[in-house]
Amino acid sequence: MQNTDPTTPPIDASRATARRQQILCAAAECFREYGFHAASIAKISSIAGMSPGHIYHYFENKEAIIAAIVAQDLESLMTMTAEFRAAANIRTALIERAAEGVADQLDPVSAGLKLEIVAEAARNPHVGQIVREADATCRRELAITIRDIRRTAGHEDSPAAIDDMVEVLACLFEGLLLRTIRNPGLDHSGVALRIQTAISDLLNQPT
Amino acid sequence: MQNTDPTTPPIDASRATARRQQILCAAAECFREYGFHAASIAKISSIAGMSPGHIYHYFENKEAIIAAIVAQDLESLMTMTAEFRAAANIRTALIERAAEGVADQLDPVSAGLKLEIVAEAARNPHVGQIVREADATCRRELAITIRDIRRTAGHEDSPAAIDDMVEVLACLFEGLLLRTIRNPGLDHSGVALRIQTAISDLLNQPT
Repeated sequence: MQNTDPTTPPIDASRATARRQQILCAAAECFREYGFHAASIAKISSIAGMSPGHIYHYFENKEAIIAAIVAQDLESLMTMTAEFRAAANIRTALIERAAEGVADQLDPVSAGLKLEIVAEAARNPHVGQIVREADATCRRELAITIRDIRRTAGHEDSPAAIDDMVEVLACLFEGLLLRTIRNPGLDHSGVALRIQTAISDLLNQPT
Repeated sequence: MQNTDPTTPPIDASRATARRQQILCAAAECFREYGFHAASIAKISSIAGMSPGHIYHYFENKEAIIAAIVAQDLESLMTMTAEFRAAANIRTALIERAAEGVADQLDPVSAGLKLEIVAEAARNPHVGQIVREADATCRRELAITIRDIRRTAGHEDSPAAIDDMVEVLACLFEGLLLRTIRNPGLDHSGVALRIQTAISDLLNQPT
């Protein structure tokens, strides 16, 4: 395709995207391996094969890298909710899709990184804010989804009741991040089926 | 009470217990605040108000401190399961007691520490082993409890089915550790009630 804007040549834009992604992967590896505190920009630059100056060109600091990782996770969750919200039967789509969600959460490598980010959020106000804002966006989407499913089934819940159901749904998925580290031998498919039944029961709870 | 063993005077034993506890509290604060890697024995000794040599007298290294913290958590969980297993109706006792368990898990200070320990377990094989062994003990207890409840209700489950139910129960509780950091404003009592209903439904799942 012809480049019509000489100030932002597409080849440079895609190179920048690739470089950012390369930094995010190196940082993810560093955070997992050393923890956020001990993962220095020097270590990240060595794993990424770039100079520290080059990293600072893309990200102001480690918090900005965490923000980008959290934003990517949020984006993939938003894509997933949009997909099942577009389904003819949202309830069935949510429960079916849950099996895939369980499998994602049980990957020990990404679980380790997610736990590290939330552990850091518990002590670092800036990371805490990034994590809480992403979570609020995610909760809003899930609340709309659950409310629609419940309305279709004839339940008219208070917003607070919907929020509480969102929390239980979130527990079921986020708990898996800890389970895969604490019990690496757990039965993935058996647990996925039980979680699907638990979600179905949750969606049937009294108003 | 008269001290009948001159080699282990009780006053020294209780002083040692108090010192160990003082180190565990200082270490917990350090791990939460700086993460496991950055929490040096020097920092722990400064918070505990003891020399590093004194700390090494009680604990060989940071991993040994983590092991002691994990052992304390396990002990309190074992006490709790023993309590509801002694109840006339184990099922009712488990569900009632769950409200208290939810409240404990939602304490953001201890949640931060527990997440830090599991994040460390994901990268440090020694801490990983400590965490996995404690979890295996905990799972065995919960499996016996769930099996007894299910048998009373006429279900005869395979050991694998019981193990999967234990995992879902664990997700409900451990997920709260992440929820209290990601959404500090969540409705504690409303979520506790929904989790109690979810546990009741889990105990009623098909064989």
